[in-house]
Amino acid sequence: MKQIPYSFDLNQPDFIPSTYDNHIKRHLSAMKGQYLDQQAFDAMMNDDPLLYEVYELQRPTVEGELLHGISIVHPGKVGNEFNMTKGHFHEVLDTGEIYYCLKGHGYMVMETPEGEWAVEVLYPGRVLYVLPRWAHRSVNISLQEDLITFFVYPGDAGHDYGTIEQQGFRKLIIDKDGEPAIVDNPRWGVSETA
Amino acid sequence: MKQIPYSFDLNQPDFIPSTYDNHIKRHLSAMKGQYLDQQAFDAMMNDDPLLYEVYELQRPTVEGELLHGISIVHPGKVGNEFNMTKGHFHEVLDTGEIYYCLKGHGYMVMETPEGEWAVEVLYPGRVLYVLPRWAHRSVNISLQEDLITFFVYPGDAGHDYGTIEQQGFRKLIIDKDGEPAIVDNPRWGVSETA
Repeated sequence: MKQIPYSFDLNQPDFIPSTYDNHIKRHLSAMKGQYLDQQAFDAMMNDDPLLYEVYELQRPTVEGELLHGISIVHPGKVGNEFNMTKGHFHEVLDTGEIYYCLKGHGYMVMETPEGEWAVEVLYPGRVLYVLPRWAHRSVNISLQEDLITFFVYPGDAGHDYGTIEQQGFRKLIIDKDGEPAIVDNPRWGVSETA
Repeated sequence: MKQIPYSFDLNQPDFIPSTYDNHIKRHLSAMKGQYLDQQAFDAMMNDDPLLYEVYELQRPTVEGELLHGISIVHPGKVGNEFNMTKGHFHEVLDTGEIYYCLKGHGYMVMETPEGEWAVEVLYPGRVLYVLPRWAHRSVNISLQEDLITFFVYPGDAGHDYGTIEQQGFRKLIIDKDGEPAIVDNPRWGVSETA
């Protein structure tokens, strides 16, 4: 664990700093119940492709620290839904998160426990502030290149993946005749893991 | 105050997002006692030049929020010391800050109450994590262009400018034959405002 301030480069093309010591890989099998097209999902499970990766530096998970890392969502679709992250609320719900887009083209799909939803676009140079209370999921709407973002969140925020695993997001991002479209999730709120 | 997540562009050449609603300007007169060369300081006070600017979005200053903004240190010197920010500890000392450099070339000068010090370099694409407890000051070591950084810190961190106004930083950044050099501050700890 570093005891003095540290700096590192985010360089093209992959933007992965060698400083980072935690590498998380999420394959399709981690996304059970999240994609609408179950047949397409099952057909792809033989290969269990890598959908996204996260690089982080391990720091104390306490208030006052800022956890930061790189998220890489690879291009692709499951059925007509674009590749995406699991998405999560923060365990400490009243904590926000800042994203800075480094590469690619994406949507951030967000919602609150109270039923509000929002979708914001991501492309290089764009900053997004996910307000406290908002669950968030990155979606890569390019079929050619990675969506790469740098993120910062409070050290004590934690991750609540379970709520989204159970109920999904209210909105899905699908490829509609070559354009990304925001549509209602017909299975929202239905237990996905039952 | 925005109630839903928001995004905005950081675009060349000035990177100032129109979203930001708080604009702070710091002139030389705000830096009394911080530059070593008092004669040079006094001579420049007729013009009282603008040294740096900060743009922020106003958010609740509470735990869980992430305050973020743009810092612009204009190029120049006072005597042989490069233009710099006032620098500060956080009022809640155990809170960190993330910087992402967008433009220019700079140093971040840092120190703890316990006497440690560090200097990290900033240039486009470089991320710096100022650990909790570390006071920090941006120094523009280019005499041609602005040093522009994007910063993120916890909503409840607050600013303690007074300690630095009183004692200064342990290290100064001077122009030594056209190169930036880190030197001891001979007046460190001496009350600057007495």
